Amino acid sequence: MGKTDTRTLVAETVEKVDENVILKGWIDSIRDHGKITFIDLRDRSGIVQCVGQDLPSVTSESVVEIQGKVSKRPEGLINKNIKTGTVEIQVGKLEVITKAQELPLPISSDGYSIDENIRNKWRYLDLRRTRMNTNMKVRSKVANFMRNWLNDRDFVEIETPILTKTTPEGARDFLVPSRLQPGNFYALPQSPQQYKQLLMVAGIERYYQFARCFRDEDPRADRAYGEFTQLDIEMSFVTQEDILQMAEILFTELVKKIFPEKKISKSPWPRLSHREAMEKYRSDKPDLRKNKNDKDELAFAWVLDFPLFTEQSEEDYFHGSGVAKFAPSHHMFTAPHPDDIELLEKDPMKVRGLQHDLVLNGYEVGGGSIRIHQPEVQSKVFDLIGFTKDQKKQFSHMLNAFTYGVPPHGGIAPGLDRFLMAILGEPSVREVMAFPTSASGQTAVLDAPSKATESQLKELAIKVAADEE
Amino acid sequence: MGKTDTRTLVAETVEKVDENVILKGWIDSIRDHGKITFIDLRDRSGIVQCVGQDLPSVTSESVVEIQGKVSKRPEGLINKNIKTGTVEIQVGKLEVITKAQELPLPISSDGYSIDENIRNKWRYLDLRRTRMNTNMKVRSKVANFMRNWLNDRDFVEIETPILTKTTPEGARDFLVPSRLQPGNFYALPQSPQQYKQLLMVAGIERYYQFARCFRDEDPRADRAYGEFTQLDIEMSFVTQEDILQMAEILFTELVKKIFPEKKISKSPWPRLSHREAMEKYRSDKPDLRKNKNDKDELAFAWVLDFPLFTEQSEEDYFHGSGVAKFAPSHHMFTAPHPDDIELLEKDPMKVRGLQHDLVLNGYEVGGGSIRIHQPEVQSKVFDLIGFTKDQKKQFSHMLNAFTYGVPPHGGIAPGLDRFLMAILGEPSVREVMAFPTSASGQTAVLDAPSKATESQLKELAIKVAADEE
Repeated sequence: MGKTDTRTLVAETVEKVDENVILKGWIDSIRDHGKITFIDLRDRSGIVQCVGQDLPSVTSESVVEIQGKVSKRPEGLINKNIKTGTVEIQVGKLEVITKAQELPLPISSDGYSIDENIRNKWRYLDLRRTRMNTNMKVRSKVANFMRNWLNDRDFVEIETPILTKTTPEGARDFLVPSRLQPGNFYALPQSPQQYKQLLMVAGIERYYQFARCFRDEDPRADRAYGEFTQLDIEMSFVTQEDILQMAEILFTELVKKIFPEKKISKSPWPRLSHREAMEKYRSDKPDLRKNKNDKDELAFAWVLDFPLFTEQSEEDYFHGSGVAKFAPSHHMFTAPHPDDIELLEKDPMKVRGLQHDLVLNGYEVGGGSIRIHQPEVQSKVFDLIGFTKDQKKQFSHMLNAFTYGVPPHGGIAPGLDRFLMAILGEPSVREVMAFPTSASGQTAVLDAPSKATESQLKELAIKVAADEE
Repeated sequence: MGKTDTRTLVAETVEKVDENVILKGWIDSIRDHGKITFIDLRDRSGIVQCVGQDLPSVTSESVVEIQGKVSKRPEGLINKNIKTGTVEIQVGKLEVITKAQELPLPISSDGYSIDENIRNKWRYLDLRRTRMNTNMKVRSKVANFMRNWLNDRDFVEIETPILTKTTPEGARDFLVPSRLQPGNFYALPQSPQQYKQLLMVAGIERYYQFARCFRDEDPRADRAYGEFTQLDIEMSFVTQEDILQMAEILFTELVKKIFPEKKISKSPWPRLSHREAMEKYRSDKPDLRKNKNDKDELAFAWVLDFPLFTEQSEEDYFHGSGVAKFAPSHHMFTAPHPDDIELLEKDPMKVRGLQHDLVLNGYEVGGGSIRIHQPEVQSKVFDLIGFTKDQKKQFSHMLNAFTYGVPPHGGIAPGLDRFLMAILGEPSVREVMAFPTSASGQTAVLDAPSKATESQLKELAIKVAADEE
């Protein structure tokens, strides 16, 4: 990179036959044949075989610098399993930069059978395994493809705050005590829902961000504890049809580019009404693959025409009103189907919402909707949810914003972790996250959550309740 | 975008002379000349003049759909101030989509003279002003340029957790009470310092992310309260020289592409030792512009050879040990200059650190260092800071990680908000953020921080101390 960088990457050696090179990386494996030692050297570009005599003793996974000459392997010794299989390095000098003690977990396997707590504790080693390393690189490539695709189409990437107010999406909030306003709390966003709608009022028209979302919900295989990342997209002056087509083109082109080995089983993607999905597949995220053993089959589908409301339960954390009424099945900003507006008065449970769920191989990998942009409709929905006057007041900024020239708008938010899990066929979202939190909320490697000091708590004007019992 | 989208953007009208078009957007201004009305219609692509007779009454900033015919303006009526100045729209039909009431703040000015609290309360309107709208688009372009530049050079974008453990960077943490582990707290990261170093141990070699960082510090013009964004870059097998050259090339190419009107006053960038900067300019971030009134002059500079330690004060929140010793001037993971290792024992205040600060026009727009990768050196630095055994134990995962084959590594983290503020000549970082928090910690538009409910606090096992007094 800089002028002082004389290092050659492992993958570049095939182009440097008979040249002297300096390689740096990890000892992937060692085979000692008496005087002659074979070393597989690993760096970010791959693996290459190095051969030397009377080399200093070195342990696996140590970091070394090797000076040597690239030589062509004879035809019969070519290793077709690695990209550098046509060459090997004749080691002139091997210097140990940092020594590795024995690793606490194996990293040459795929790692599935190793206890997840062990893998998380030494995540920095777990990420060395080929599968995990590849997953990280694929994740980066996918995000970059999506960004460039959207940038090419006039979308503006905008960051919204993490320290914010509760966005009632039906899950439990994480709270952050405020030092400057003792007794008050920020909430971490369950999604940037209100901010992205406000950006439409701001005239941005096409917005996206890779948004970190926070929900204090129990984890599942397809849901990490605490935080996840979604590609948050919002557009003005669009119909639901526009959003569906946009997403379908984006993902189709993404698959073609990043996952050329995968086949989308049906295009255009099947569309099911919620009722149809439930009746036919007993699921609102049906797995429509023809052959569930085909790891390269991708069955995308849309589920539409969800009911706008479901029955409210104790679990609906957003209401808190105690008045059990109707709960939004998506969220409280989803627009009712224009044909069903009158039913809002007469029979709310029959109103369809302009919601769309994106399903891939049986996973819900994204959801969105056309949003309400009429203050009176939004107000009516608040009433149906059972909001008190005070609760409505908490959303007065939205009703207010809609009086200054709001464009019709809507969007979709594919979950990046969930999508990667589905397309890579991984058993859990944690396989596509660098440092996932465990089911008990324990962070990888670092020992959190942990105790706060007395002076921290004092500054924040809070007390730990348990301490007093 | 979709097949159903028949809308023409304002900027496209110049290519559609004599064609019928459908435009959608905001009424930027209206001039009523009796029967004839002139309307400037604004959408994300710009502004176009529309002319019509007997149009329905409409207010400024309302959202409308205009059907009309594009006509070429006669030579004498061409408006050279706008991109669509060669045409105007003969309005056939104007439909009000949503009406705007009178705005609570003007948006046609640059907005500097308006009270910031007013601007933040109606930020979704404030962002409509040309200057703010442009700032948002420039920010998106800059971030995208940086990403693609790094992706093209083998960097992998990796997201690290927001719910994590305190990273002692010398500032106050935000805490998040854990529900699953009552009495324990997550901290929001002051930077992803430990995670990015662990990613180097993981063999990623080249990492970046646009990292959200959180510090509960009093705000200044060049520092927003609460959160900011940095382009977090870390590399293995590099020297400080490699990092400086990488950053210099990245920013030089960025300026050329995104800010072609700007001129970098000296290249290669001047390099000053910390001592030299302080002696010559009485500042560790000197403004080296030749002409401070030239808004297009960019004076980048490096400040190097910082002392590794400064005197520790009460404000150094990371120590908490009460044993006032040495405080890292950058952070506790910065490597001492190799020539000064022996001074760690003899005279720690004389040790230089391998820190580098990136300065632009008198602002520190980035900082970084070569990191310690030897457990014994890291341990020594912990001792000099005055860490107790228990405090050292909190970082045992770092010392431990370094025993499994750690590459020498280092990095740099340009602050995105600060860089944009400096290059755009804005008076505050809040001018380049969509929804900045006020000095008192109040969020834009939304009313946070705010009260939590009793049941929320109970679930989190905390109490508000003030309630009991």
